[in-house]
Amino acid sequence: MNPLVDLDSAARVAQQIGDYSGTFAFAVSGAVLGVRANYDIVGIAVLACATAVGGGIIRDLIIGNVPPTAFVDMRYVAIALAAALLIFLWRPRIRLATRALDITDAAGLGIFAVTGTVTAHAAGLGAPSAAFLGVVTAVGGGVIRDVLAGEHPSVLRHDKEIYALPALFGAAITATALELGYYTALVGLLAAAGAFTLRILALRYGWRAPRPRRPPEASNPA
Amino acid sequence: MNPLVDLDSAARVAQQIGDYSGTFAFAVSGAVLGVRANYDIVGIAVLACATAVGGGIIRDLIIGNVPPTAFVDMRYVAIALAAALLIFLWRPRIRLATRALDITDAAGLGIFAVTGTVTAHAAGLGAPSAAFLGVVTAVGGGVIRDVLAGEHPSVLRHDKEIYALPALFGAAITATALELGYYTALVGLLAAAGAFTLRILALRYGWRAPRPRRPPEASNPA
Amino acid sequence: MNPLVDLDSAARVAQQIGDYSGTFAFAVSGAVLGVRANYDIVGIAVLACATAVGGGIIRDLIIGNVPPTAFVDMRYVAIALAAALLIFLWRPRIRLATRALDITDAAGLGIFAVTGTVTAHAAGLGAPSAAFLGVVTAVGGGVIRDVLAGEHPSVLRHDKEIYALPALFGAAITATALELGYYTALVGLLAAAGAFTLRILALRYGWRAPRPRRPPEASNPA
Repeated sequence: MNPLVDLDSAARVAQQIGDYSGTFAFAVSGAVLGVRANYDIVGIAVLACATAVGGGIIRDLIIGNVPPTAFVDMRYVAIALAAALLIFLWRPRIRLATRALDITDAAGLGIFAVTGTVTAHAAGLGAPSAAFLGVVTAVGGGVIRDVLAGEHPSVLRHDKEIYALPALFGAAITATALELGYYTALVGLLAAAGAFTLRILALRYGWRAPRPRRPPEASNPA
Repeated sequence: MNPLVDLDSAARVAQQIGDYSGTFAFAVSGAVLGVRANYDIVGIAVLACATAVGGGIIRDLIIGNVPPTAFVDMRYVAIALAAALLIFLWRPRIRLATRALDITDAAGLGIFAVTGTVTAHAAGLGAPSAAFLGVVTAVGGGVIRDVLAGEHPSVLRHDKEIYALPALFGAAITATALELGYYTALVGLLAAAGAFTLRILALRYGWRAPRPRRPPEASNPA
Repeated sequence: MNPLVDLDSAARVAQQIGDYSGTFAFAVSGAVLGVRANYDIVGIAVLACATAVGGGIIRDLIIGNVPPTAFVDMRYVAIALAAALLIFLWRPRIRLATRALDITDAAGLGIFAVTGTVTAHAAGLGAPSAAFLGVVTAVGGGVIRDVLAGEHPSVLRHDKEIYALPALFGAAITATALELGYYTALVGLLAAAGAFTLRILALRYGWRAPRPRRPPEASNPA
């Protein structure tokens, strides 16, 4: 079963390129986190793979596309391993690594929000469900990465800039365009770029979502 | 494929009401934990959704009901988001939040133990397997919530009152009634209420499961 | 759907024995970790079950074998519960428990690397994909165990001996033999024993994978 079968040919190629790019970006983010956490080469490779293919595997299990693409097309794992090796050899400095992690994570987030939504819609889900699954695909790899590495997931942290909202932005544009029949590879590219830009601007200018005002005793939590 | 197809009509309505109620209860528990952990509105919404639909998604993946109901019927996510917004606006105090978390978590636990078992049985699993999957459905959402929020899962903690046993109680009664052909909506309601009551009594009176007596050097663990 | 249908009869029996043995070994490792973490009997049972059947459930979901074997054949859960009860009654000392955890974890790792690869290959995956899924099956239960118990997964830790590589060794031998048509129960046994031995030798002699050399400021991480 190929969930991409009802996309036109150009859109399929764009979708494939997008999926490979997102895989590479997320793999780099996982590998960089592994270097920062002082993992060995195997730990770095495992974290790179889990981050890169984790979101897509969740997406494929949910739409019933089994075995998931990452287990059929070994290029995804190969891309993730290449990214891990690259980062292992490069050994970035902490400050640079943090910036590289932020940028590649934002790229993976934007790309997978779009390709996840497209895959879900092609599998027959309605627009709201497809957008929801696009967001799950986009944030899933990063959540797996953070949970495995013992870090608090970025998608939840109150001291962090907005993370799920840029993914929702890209997924919602994509789902709307698909529903209205206006989706093209260019629309997908723009939606991914929009989500990426939103995330990077949020990091740059410290955009955060509102928090509940805490009642008095909250300043001294148990 | 509708796994509920061989339930009679009244039982189906009851099952649906139960699933919505359990979703709301677990969503509140996730949102309350998010408020207590000082998350922003997006983190609270994500944690509410993950807690509310996590157990059901695991259940649906295991019985092959794909896409899982939570991705087809967007009312589950809408209920979870409404619960998150409610808690965000209410901003409960820590002490009250802990009690609200305990009660809503117990309600979700009891309800999902029953509806999870019913869904699994309707999908063709035998009574022991159905009860096992009912327990997984009931504790799954809470485990996801606790792992995401970086808390030790309640189902494991030795300093906590019994948690999995009330779920097993509700699931076992449901599975037995289903197997003997005596299952009705009322039986399900009573089983869920029994599991809820058992959990609340355990919290009230500090019921705990036995622990292994530790050998001498255990008092000074590595 | 029985993914073992195209194995010959002797290989099927061996596969079954292997799966039961691996389940027992991983259940012991989970139960021992539960005792060490001072869990109660329920927590120990939950951790034993999650470790023992977690990897196999992931494998079955990925190849589309639903409901996963662990939910159809209740002997897997029964074996895990028996292992949990055994460890609960035995109450091993910390030093002994650590050794028992290492040995049973290595046994489960080697066995599941082989049986996971065989199951994946029988379900139609190519040799590289089957070996990849074998590794996921082998390390999956341990990762679930460690994440639930709040420990850093062994597969990632830089201060730990090699863990994923022995699994990859066993899976690669198995996949190669299957692809060339030379796979027999004896080959599987040898591959599992090889992976087990590699892991035990790594623990004994402190074999570790290389780490990236850190740049200067890394000694003072943020």
